[in-house]
Amino acid sequence: MLTYTNHFDTKTLDPFTLEKGFEAVRYEAASGEVGYYHLPISSQPLVEELKSLYHDIDRRFNTIAIIGIGGSSLGIKAIERLLRPSTPNAKKLIYLENSDPISIMQEMKQIDKFRTLFIVISKSGGTVETLSIFKRLVVSFELPLDHSDQIYVVSDENSILAHFADEHHLRRFVIPSNVGGRFSVLSAVGMVPLTLAGFDTAAILKGAQTFLEQFWNRQEEHMLQKAAYYVTQSDQYPMNVLFAYSDTFEEFGKWVVQIWGESLGKRNRRGERVGLTPISLIGSVDQHSFLQLIIEGPLNKTVTFMHIEHSEDHLMIPELSLHYLEKSDFVNGKSFNELINAQCHATMQSVLQSGVSVDEIAWKQIDEASVGELILYYELLTSLSGALLEINTYDQPGVEIGKKILETQF
Amino acid sequence: MLTYTNHFDTKTLDPFTLEKGFEAVRYEAASGEVGYYHLPISSQPLVEELKSLYHDIDRRFNTIAIIGIGGSSLGIKAIERLLRPSTPNAKKLIYLENSDPISIMQEMKQIDKFRTLFIVISKSGGTVETLSIFKRLVVSFELPLDHSDQIYVVSDENSILAHFADEHHLRRFVIPSNVGGRFSVLSAVGMVPLTLAGFDTAAILKGAQTFLEQFWNRQEEHMLQKAAYYVTQSDQYPMNVLFAYSDTFEEFGKWVVQIWGESLGKRNRRGERVGLTPISLIGSVDQHSFLQLIIEGPLNKTVTFMHIEHSEDHLMIPELSLHYLEKSDFVNGKSFNELINAQCHATMQSVLQSGVSVDEIAWKQIDEASVGELILYYELLTSLSGALLEINTYDQPGVEIGKKILETQF
Repeated sequence: MLTYTNHFDTKTLDPFTLEKGFEAVRYEAASGEVGYYHLPISSQPLVEELKSLYHDIDRRFNTIAIIGIGGSSLGIKAIERLLRPSTPNAKKLIYLENSDPISIMQEMKQIDKFRTLFIVISKSGGTVETLSIFKRLVVSFELPLDHSDQIYVVSDENSILAHFADEHHLRRFVIPSNVGGRFSVLSAVGMVPLTLAGFDTAAILKGAQTFLEQFWNRQEEHMLQKAAYYVTQSDQYPMNVLFAYSDTFEEFGKWVVQIWGESLGKRNRRGERVGLTPISLIGSVDQHSFLQLIIEGPLNKTVTFMHIEHSEDHLMIPELSLHYLEKSDFVNGKSFNELINAQCHATMQSVLQSGVSVDEIAWKQIDEASVGELILYYELLTSLSGALLEINTYDQPGVEIGKKILETQF
Repeated sequence: MLTYTNHFDTKTLDPFTLEKGFEAVRYEAASGEVGYYHLPISSQPLVEELKSLYHDIDRRFNTIAIIGIGGSSLGIKAIERLLRPSTPNAKKLIYLENSDPISIMQEMKQIDKFRTLFIVISKSGGTVETLSIFKRLVVSFELPLDHSDQIYVVSDENSILAHFADEHHLRRFVIPSNVGGRFSVLSAVGMVPLTLAGFDTAAILKGAQTFLEQFWNRQEEHMLQKAAYYVTQSDQYPMNVLFAYSDTFEEFGKWVVQIWGESLGKRNRRGERVGLTPISLIGSVDQHSFLQLIIEGPLNKTVTFMHIEHSEDHLMIPELSLHYLEKSDFVNGKSFNELINAQCHATMQSVLQSGVSVDEIAWKQIDEASVGELILYYELLTSLSGALLEINTYDQPGVEIGKKILETQF
């Protein structure tokens, strides 16, 4: 369970705005228009099915290669990075995402074709990077297609990729049609690779579901406040910084950037350009980089501080005093975990003092339930904000033009 | 050599503003106030000295552990990532940066104490993360200090870390006092680890020096235009996006974020908060993430597109047509390099069409000279912009408050 604190002034927020956000997402969920709200429950049978496959997979493969980009990789990477330290025996995951030839070659070198399960993930089924890389793998590793039990496909029910999978009798998993790519990590997109790798996905779903129930029961009002504050202040604060104090949040930050940026950067009903710009930072590293800009630069950002109360508490800063270096002795005998938490709190205080709007998300420790909760938190926050911005949170019309231009270049 | 193109309107720029920027940096360089301008030449003897150490180092060590954060690690990582694919035999570099205990434990597991050279880097000498990690390593690996030939120190001439090194007769390298941490990658900070690892640092310096000479000779006017445009339009466009089309630019992007954000986020002479917010993106990955926000969200960003003309040209998308997946056949027989370049150009066109201000940096291929050039380019651009913002580009007063608060927490 995470703890959420809004340090900004919530008194001036219009109660009607809060209700408007809540009612909008309740309608999305109840009407079935938007599917991600149902995944924490609807994905449970899928996870059970995957667990029944696990023993066979585990005997045969030690690596899972994920061929997917954007919504088909970011969420998987985010969860893997957060849970890998506590799940060290999970299978190796390799990501083939970008059309960058340097990366593709590097990742391909790591693949043992006899010990690798290939999972091709694309919601639309037509993603050019994914299909091009898949074809490269088929040719380079001489992968047989028909009845292959080392190629799985995750896609929309009626996509071209689904038809391809069926023609070759490949195992296929469905992304519900009302679940958008960037909201799909708790669908087959994330559940298939992560469960087969050995992560406890059932516990992730449970954490997500618990939080969702609390939200529907109006026990998470801080979210309504935050969405309302962000949206009504978006002219003054067009940027939202997530300052997370652990390197293991790096991929999670990229997932947040996608869901926030791509969902909320839109034309609204009146055709006006609206949106909030997400920025992901890692503490304490970015105290040595971006912090100066937050504190003394223009007051155009809100900042969310995130920290973990207990993380490898046993790794201590030694009781060692070195001549000339006594300046740092004030942390002797403390754990690195205490140091990084103290750095987070000190930085948060200095940011607050500089007049910046701040909120805070505190973890007790990193575990599956908390990861599921945080995913739902950011998905709900995005939906609430989109409703208040009066946009379609779930499409991405702006990226279609570039795809059309691309086709004309060959 | 890189090619620079400004696609925004430069006609309305005031020639006086351009001259003001140029004269300000010329003064900084000529007066000796700011030292980084001289590094491409002044670091050459250092590189020669390091080369003479290389054989001994190479016989004894296969890994270099860098203990440093911010300006003492970001630039090294940026150069390593860009040049590693063409320098595969360079020694392994391990970075101990963050106070995150999970990362420290992971990195420590990779260290073989008998085959690792430890380089402690801190300009001030008092960085709490660096000193705490160093003490942890000394105790965990039982490293002898006196006359150790496996611990090197890089720091200011009179820092506490320098005194410590001298007391124990450790090999020590100096960061010139007029070179700030985030501008220090071409000083001993970057040259010591990279040269000893086996990277061709002399060629990096040469590329930097060539570009610098062209700049002083007024052959790089596009930079004056870009700085003037960014600064005079900073109210309208407070964010500057670097959209680089190769995963190998990821660490370089973080270096840019530091130098740009920490240098330019300041109070100006009138006490007003000014600054430009840097955002680093990777193509094609972030076409599936942030692009929608650029194209349809508020017009509050400029975008720099960066791409590599030739990169692993031989990695082809096979001439393979799969039933149902014919949609992607338009790239069959092309190289992935052609695909990613076409994606960059198509995205750039669509961003231009949406009314966003764009400029472009084109690489022929990734090589040492181009890396040196790009470093100088961003350093000069930062200095020019800082001069036009009328701020002190080289200090970071805003981060001191947090450090003071930190000390009170123990």
